[in-house]
Amino acid sequence: MSLLTSVDARTSQVDDFRVLLDEALHDFVRARQDLAPELTAELRGLILAGGKRIRPTFAWWGWRAAGGAPPVDAVVRALVALELLQCCALVHDDVMDRSVTRRGKPSVHESFAARHRRERWAGSARQYGDSAAVLVGDLALAWADDALVTAGLPADALMRAWGPWQAMRTEMIMGQHLDLLGVARREESLEAAVRVAALKTAAYTVERPLHLGAALAGADDDVVDALRAYGHDIGVAFQLRDDLMGVFGDSALTGKPVGEDLREGKRTPLMSIALSRAQGDPAAQRLLRRCLGSGSVSERTVADVCELLVELGAVAAVEKHIEMLAASGVAALERTDIDDDARRELVRLAGRAVKRTT
Amino acid sequence: MSLLTSVDARTSQVDDFRVLLDEALHDFVRARQDLAPELTAELRGLILAGGKRIRPTFAWWGWRAAGGAPPVDAVVRALVALELLQCCALVHDDVMDRSVTRRGKPSVHESFAARHRRERWAGSARQYGDSAAVLVGDLALAWADDALVTAGLPADALMRAWGPWQAMRTEMIMGQHLDLLGVARREESLEAAVRVAALKTAAYTVERPLHLGAALAGADDDVVDALRAYGHDIGVAFQLRDDLMGVFGDSALTGKPVGEDLREGKRTPLMSIALSRAQGDPAAQRLLRRCLGSGSVSERTVADVCELLVELGAVAAVEKHIEMLAASGVAALERTDIDDDARRELVRLAGRAVKRTT
Repeated sequence: MSLLTSVDARTSQVDDFRVLLDEALHDFVRARQDLAPELTAELRGLILAGGKRIRPTFAWWGWRAAGGAPPVDAVVRALVALELLQCCALVHDDVMDRSVTRRGKPSVHESFAARHRRERWAGSARQYGDSAAVLVGDLALAWADDALVTAGLPADALMRAWGPWQAMRTEMIMGQHLDLLGVARREESLEAAVRVAALKTAAYTVERPLHLGAALAGADDDVVDALRAYGHDIGVAFQLRDDLMGVFGDSALTGKPVGEDLREGKRTPLMSIALSRAQGDPAAQRLLRRCLGSGSVSERTVADVCELLVELGAVAAVEKHIEMLAASGVAALERTDIDDDARRELVRLAGRAVKRTT
Repeated sequence: MSLLTSVDARTSQVDDFRVLLDEALHDFVRARQDLAPELTAELRGLILAGGKRIRPTFAWWGWRAAGGAPPVDAVVRALVALELLQCCALVHDDVMDRSVTRRGKPSVHESFAARHRRERWAGSARQYGDSAAVLVGDLALAWADDALVTAGLPADALMRAWGPWQAMRTEMIMGQHLDLLGVARREESLEAAVRVAALKTAAYTVERPLHLGAALAGADDDVVDALRAYGHDIGVAFQLRDDLMGVFGDSALTGKPVGEDLREGKRTPLMSIALSRAQGDPAAQRLLRRCLGSGSVSERTVADVCELLVELGAVAAVEKHIEMLAASGVAALERTDIDDDARRELVRLAGRAVKRTT
């Protein structure tokens, strides 16, 4: 989702929302900082370290698209929930992946483990760090729901929003589990890779946040369907763009190094397409599979795989699919009656997915 | 909480509630089983394996105590939330404690890890098992909130219940973290041990469930205060009784073996009192501290520590405190105007904490 990095630099309206959201986010956590000081401090650190607030931003535009019924302040407070949910996802993800850094700082479990070592506490530092991080994630998840329910929304708006909110949380967790299963089962099919992208990015990051925003505004079914169709297509397009940047690098935008995803053995649609196109070429298949194991991958292999992905036409196929998705996503918006500012912004966001950065 | 094992065998009213609750619990999970089949199967297994439904039961009596305003079916569906929250606590707890069994079956992370080994999947079985279990816990936590919000409660009842529900989840997580910190910091003070008991058992298991039930029924402040005072005292009393059974065994009721808590190095008020009374007796202190480390403890040591706990008067002190708490808890109920059936049942439950079982 690094494509969205500078969304807020482009439109003052998004800038305004970002300021309002960050205020509401800080107010929410500040009001609870005495409850579990050690856990809350880590959560606050993660929130303050930044993040692009993508999910609340899409929810905001979903709400605006459907007419943006007041009260605005309650809606902003409600959208804090999406950022807290993402905090849970990040903290638990880092434990599962054993990632040592996050947003340029030690990951939460690493930070707790480091404290355990520094203070020469009893027992295993790793176990303490992992356990405390699981609790921070649980707290973020529970607080996400608290943020939505206590935002001060009218009762009917809250009940309308609960449908997409419910779906979003379950889909996020399902997506994480399918991702784990894919690696465990050495899944290579395009279908499986697309399903993970659809759940983890499209549904969780774009489609459901838009849906939730629209539901808060009391949108009718046509508008909801159009926003969801857009969200699904643009969400998958974003993920496919992210996958390309994860292999070919993206130093201009986010400083992503070349080959990062290859080193992590990520099972992406890009790799599935390449594997399928390499049928009948055992040497090419071996080279690709070397990246899907759990071992280390050399600079040389990364360069070879990059070349192979282009040669096989996998990169071109993914680029073409991104263009198709962006076009169908935008077309879905054009068939329905939504707010003009929101439409312009959503079309602009779709454009960012298509723009080649390599 | 093994004291409550046979609550349902004593009163037909609780029996009725148990039947209604179990139906609602199964309906809730069944309606969602297609969403994340592997995760949901583990969750259902845990729910079917039993459990005493203590928290929903106290919430039920809190609701009854305050007059039990209808709709009953929505209230029962709402109380499913408390059992799902407990599922999250158990699953995440077992990951943190590295427990291999739960309710007589493999714990959730063990079950996932076993499948990974059986299917010869790629990567680390332990890492897969832990990760999938973290996700099952997350799902249970998210679904707990879904159960409460989508139960069909009147909007004002839901908003009233959210206060104690919010507090209950945060206090549960805080209690878990204080427990971890206590072990890490080799905490020996009575104050710290009582604080953990107050959060993990009293607040989470008795006080907040009663509070939530009373809030659902629209209880006034006096009733809420009385139920919370009772809940705090009885909750701590239950925990102290559990601590005694964890050391001296309780084969008649739950089959708890002698010395279990000593082998696990649990930091209980019982052990804090003993340590404080053993001041000036280095041999006794050494013996007690042998159980608070992380090493293994022999049969011989268990027998010696049991004897020492009696000799030091720590057992008698805890028994006396339990009696005091039960009396003050019951006195709190007597000062307020609540439903007679509920009062009788709550007094009976208080009695179970006091009764010696060793």
